[in-house]
Amino acid sequence: MSPADMPARSRKAFLQHMVDNLPKSLHNRIMALKHNQMQQIKISEQFFREVYELEKRFYVQSCVLFDARRDIVDGVVEPPVTERYWHEESDEVLEEIKATEEFHQLIKHLPQIPENVRGIPRFWLTVFRNVPLISDLVQEHDEPLLSYLQDVRISYSPDSYTINFAFQPNEYLHMSSLMLTKKYYLRHEADKEYPFLFEGPEIVRCEGCNIHWRDGSNLTLQTVEHKRSRKRSRCVPKVMPRESFFRFFSPPQALDLSLADEKTKLVLGNDFEVGYLLRTQIVPKAILFYTGDLVDNMNDELYPDAASMSSSSME
Amino acid sequence: MSPADMPARSRKAFLQHMVDNLPKSLHNRIMALKHNQMQQIKISEQFFREVYELEKRFYVQSCVLFDARRDIVDGVVEPPVTERYWHEESDEVLEEIKATEEFHQLIKHLPQIPENVRGIPRFWLTVFRNVPLISDLVQEHDEPLLSYLQDVRISYSPDSYTINFAFQPNEYLHMSSLMLTKKYYLRHEADKEYPFLFEGPEIVRCEGCNIHWRDGSNLTLQTVEHKRSRKRSRCVPKVMPRESFFRFFSPPQALDLSLADEKTKLVLGNDFEVGYLLRTQIVPKAILFYTGDLVDNMNDELYPDAASMSSSSME
Repeated sequence: MSPADMPARSRKAFLQHMVDNLPKSLHNRIMALKHNQMQQIKISEQFFREVYELEKRFYVQSCVLFDARRDIVDGVVEPPVTERYWHEESDEVLEEIKATEEFHQLIKHLPQIPENVRGIPRFWLTVFRNVPLISDLVQEHDEPLLSYLQDVRISYSPDSYTINFAFQPNEYLHMSSLMLTKKYYLRHEADKEYPFLFEGPEIVRCEGCNIHWRDGSNLTLQTVEHKRSRKRSRCVPKVMPRESFFRFFSPPQALDLSLADEKTKLVLGNDFEVGYLLRTQIVPKAILFYTGDLVDNMNDELYPDAASMSSSSME
Repeated sequence: MSPADMPARSRKAFLQHMVDNLPKSLHNRIMALKHNQMQQIKISEQFFREVYELEKRFYVQSCVLFDARRDIVDGVVEPPVTERYWHEESDEVLEEIKATEEFHQLIKHLPQIPENVRGIPRFWLTVFRNVPLISDLVQEHDEPLLSYLQDVRISYSPDSYTINFAFQPNEYLHMSSLMLTKKYYLRHEADKEYPFLFEGPEIVRCEGCNIHWRDGSNLTLQTVEHKRSRKRSRCVPKVMPRESFFRFFSPPQALDLSLADEKTKLVLGNDFEVGYLLRTQIVPKAILFYTGDLVDNMNDELYPDAASMSSSSME
């Protein structure tokens, strides 16, 4: 039986045992190669720093295209009629799905949009609804406000990046809160405890922002009628938290994720993936998630691109 | 029901239908955004070209460490006794596995290595045996020759890279064949038919090398006794192909993979993954696969790092 035929964990146990039981001279050579690998990791850290710098530099180049996108979405600019010169994907499986009765039931609920509509209504909301990882955060009561979402952009700093959500003036947010931000802190160095798992910068912490809600429109809270006591039968309103996409802007705080409780780890693990997905996929390619040309398959299998964010995939 | 709740393919069908049935003005704005995205892809192509250049530049920096590794593996250099200053992974699950009867049976078969052995015997063979995707290619009859494998290195060119396998003199290969090579051609541009799936350079073709075998030691062939006809009962030897790692150096040829038959596609798809894994994981981190610090979990789930090689993960 070859180690490759064992499940990953058994293989790890087997190889640990094998190395531990090597003759001393040989064991020392293995340790020397691990020291050698530690130096290789230093080089690798510098490589990934430069890749991040490169990403930042190319992001600036793309901004003129993101501006043009925003203007079309807003209806500020009416683009000329364009011919498509790329191949539209179509395969038998998609056509078969479209022929099913279930599909016909589904499309009955598509909203009717008038011909004279301005821009692309609900653009970012539609994008978010098409990406499972993000759609999971969006509640029905969030939709009216998210349909005012005008643009999503990144600003890069050396050790962090911020995702900026720009809203059009609306009845939910004070004018001072039309730009909501979420900041992700990166660690560019290998983890001190597990240096060998290093695969590039990792998100280690995030920071939301205050939201100034207009009176009575805080989507993260709800008022429930509450009987204060048995004596008085009068109901009094009580304010309770409720699920909302906008909780994304007040993530649980954990300076050291390894010390956090399981629930916080789960919430933050998911949050970091959303932050990574927004930066690397959604912001640069939003239209492709709107049209379904790209389909994030998080629900079907592990999202491959999230690998560089979390080293657990290579443990 | 939100599109995110549908399986990926149904979502794709649903969104295609939605876009096709938008009012004309709106549909035109969507097409304009896809044109905008095509320009974004041009920027992205340039970004990934520069990342590849960066990889090449940092590879050169690492070569002094790879030389040191080879010298220790060969036994040319005896490293001083080193203290480890990193954390060795140990968890309950691994300890539980080590306590099982099954595990004790497994480790009985570990080869005994004498204290005075030179270098690290079977280093690369052990690495290959610990990586499922590569171990699948290695047959038992390949092991004696693979234990002469001395080093694996990359040489980078702008549109291709070559993996060089250096062997010590041995009884299988002619002296002229001690360096075996496998070349992978890259396409840095987005696919013309499916530009929106672009995720970085893709391997499109590979090239092996001739192997000059010493007489009677070609591991990719076997001689079987064969009855030529019913009349003569005498058996005559017949040369037949057999599985071997060394078939890796004569991959099936397909200039255009999309025109290849299914079996060729399967073999080459696998081959390209091996080529990608060798360049990005095995060559830079060989010792970690030897020790099991890294465990390629290809058998357990999709290997996340292969994502940038194949865009199919995002279709």
